[in-house]
Amino acid sequence: MSKTISINAGSSSLKWQLYKMPEEEVIAKGLIERIGLEDGVSTVKFNGQTETETTDIPNHTIAVKILLEDLLRLNIITSYDEITGVGHRVVAGGEIFKESALIGEKEIQEIEDLSPLAPLHNPAHVAAMRAFQEVLPEVTNVAVFDTAFHTTMPAVAYRYPIANKYYDNYQVRKYGAHGTSHQYVAQEAAKLLGKPIEDTKIITCHIGNGASITAVKGGKSVDTSMGLTPLGGIMMGTRSGDLDPAIIPFLIDREPELADAEAIRNIFNRESGLFGISEKSSDMRDIIAGKEEGDAKCTLAFEMYVDRVKKYIGQYVAVLNGVDAIVFTAGVGENSVPFRQAVLDGLTWFGIDVDPEKNVFGVEGDVTKPESKVKVFVIPTDEELVIARDVERLKTK
Amino acid sequence: MSKTISINAGSSSLKWQLYKMPEEEVIAKGLIERIGLEDGVSTVKFNGQTETETTDIPNHTIAVKILLEDLLRLNIITSYDEITGVGHRVVAGGEIFKESALIGEKEIQEIEDLSPLAPLHNPAHVAAMRAFQEVLPEVTNVAVFDTAFHTTMPAVAYRYPIANKYYDNYQVRKYGAHGTSHQYVAQEAAKLLGKPIEDTKIITCHIGNGASITAVKGGKSVDTSMGLTPLGGIMMGTRSGDLDPAIIPFLIDREPELADAEAIRNIFNRESGLFGISEKSSDMRDIIAGKEEGDAKCTLAFEMYVDRVKKYIGQYVAVLNGVDAIVFTAGVGENSVPFRQAVLDGLTWFGIDVDPEKNVFGVEGDVTKPESKVKVFVIPTDEELVIARDVERLKTK
Repeated sequence: MSKTISINAGSSSLKWQLYKMPEEEVIAKGLIERIGLEDGVSTVKFNGQTETETTDIPNHTIAVKILLEDLLRLNIITSYDEITGVGHRVVAGGEIFKESALIGEKEIQEIEDLSPLAPLHNPAHVAAMRAFQEVLPEVTNVAVFDTAFHTTMPAVAYRYPIANKYYDNYQVRKYGAHGTSHQYVAQEAAKLLGKPIEDTKIITCHIGNGASITAVKGGKSVDTSMGLTPLGGIMMGTRSGDLDPAIIPFLIDREPELADAEAIRNIFNRESGLFGISEKSSDMRDIIAGKEEGDAKCTLAFEMYVDRVKKYIGQYVAVLNGVDAIVFTAGVGENSVPFRQAVLDGLTWFGIDVDPEKNVFGVEGDVTKPESKVKVFVIPTDEELVIARDVERLKTK
Repeated sequence: MSKTISINAGSSSLKWQLYKMPEEEVIAKGLIERIGLEDGVSTVKFNGQTETETTDIPNHTIAVKILLEDLLRLNIITSYDEITGVGHRVVAGGEIFKESALIGEKEIQEIEDLSPLAPLHNPAHVAAMRAFQEVLPEVTNVAVFDTAFHTTMPAVAYRYPIANKYYDNYQVRKYGAHGTSHQYVAQEAAKLLGKPIEDTKIITCHIGNGASITAVKGGKSVDTSMGLTPLGGIMMGTRSGDLDPAIIPFLIDREPELADAEAIRNIFNRESGLFGISEKSSDMRDIIAGKEEGDAKCTLAFEMYVDRVKKYIGQYVAVLNGVDAIVFTAGVGENSVPFRQAVLDGLTWFGIDVDPEKNVFGVEGDVTKPESKVKVFVIPTDEELVIARDVERLKTK
């Protein structure tokens, strides 16, 4: 019996999911929080139960040990030998990693060297990889990159129209994000279309607290909204997305202390987006609740967000010169009916004809009328499963 | 006999055109260059002749005096009494000027106060207005704002998804540009469509060295690509357009001297766009010549530019939920057949069916086949004429 762990490590957290493979059955999942802080918390869910434990978790190695001990203690596994692979989500794979990779010392070093592109994430990924190497030295580790799916983008999409030296010297370009999710839902959408993926044009909207939209042609990413960093593209929960860059010097002229990299990052990453406009929340549910209560700032935040999503869909129809299906996934995309409805009501000219009886909470699959020229699918994303599948595929190579 | 001067004043230049009104006949036009520098040059074109004069032109008042003396000296007019109005193009009208305005002391002060939004242009406009007030004190001066046409944009389009305080304190928002041009060509397009402008959805592409694209619904601007400043929106000759703002702190981390407003403006305003990628020229003609010679950098620059224009057209089809006509105007838009062809060849799914026999150099009007669902028009812009018309309309009120 083969078991695989999907790992999503952040700077102070470690999210995991244990699969029975190749059955793709989730046996248990959990979250370790406050790594390196006081009062760490480990939560395990299995068999309908939830176990929570509070203890000091000074680093990722201890977090991994706690995770594995929990699996034994709770009889989820009877021996570490059952674990045959570990898959690690990696945010930044740069131009190096065009697909998932077996992790050796060289790969760990490369992932560490890519830290400038994901300063909060890549060091955490490396820490988790080293921890598993130490605790389970015989087990295969696989890295699955958020950016790999987007490495098929042509230069016309990934290059910024700025001086070449910034690309040549510092690799300033668009890398994209949520690649595992975009790839998974595009594949599912092709199945729903009943067409070979090679013959499809699909726009995938991964709309969560972070959000990105991808133009997928023949199963390959040809353009995506996220940029050099996860700040690019559309308006998000607390992030601005792309902007007139002159805004930054304009603000520096008025507040000279903003002539500082960290101060600039802070404004556009943490104080912007739905939160910046609503002054209330970065969570779409709160924004919609505020809008329904007549809060003008929440209403504007909602309408701006819908506007930006519509604009990306429109521009990717242009990039693809057509579209067979639009997919909504992730927290907001899967669950917010008013959001989806507002976006799609504005795109009827494209041949999108939503069926309000299908576009309801909890729906999966097609939400359009049979005659709709362009299909719209709600597809729950499953990045953990893609990671487990890649581990299975690579470890048996 | 009534004569009107259209003035376009820059920091060191003054472009002018003299109209016989209401016949809208151009009697003469000229350009005064190197104001405030050594060896100023005044060029006058009339009756098929060109007169050039080199002399010191220390300021805008002297420039205006030279202009008026030239008109008498060359017998273009016989007395200053023939001049009944002067129209001034103004780049930044902020949120104050929603339409063209008669210029009094209050208006001059307001235009001066808006200088932070157009630091090179508004002070020059004010200098030219004061010069005409001094030299021709009896003549009506009218300001025609590049931004006025865009003041109909809804908040959802003009607000940036950043903290409200930046809008409240500093009016950081999208103002747009080239409004006179967008308005003029949209009106002409409605005539060509044979429809009341109120019933039209038009996308106007003003593509020159600076470039902006506008979504025009019922004759009103509902969204436009240019932003807080003329740096926003699409890639241009030397400007980047909108970007992932994280690029700026990323560069500051690597080159700390870039933590400076002027240094940032310089990178994105002067070293980017077609020039930044081609390393050769900001002029589309040079880029296309380079591409035809097989220069890879020129080819990439061309393809990126076409890609960005296509994306704006796509997004504005989404904003308008449809489109009746797309208009190309200004230097590149009117004259570059390969550019137009490349943009439109990628948008056939939208119902655009270009007739290559019509889409030729020097064409005006419809360049599509009769069956094309969406029309494409090439319409030479005429901002000077709109200015002269506004002078005529306002001075007789």
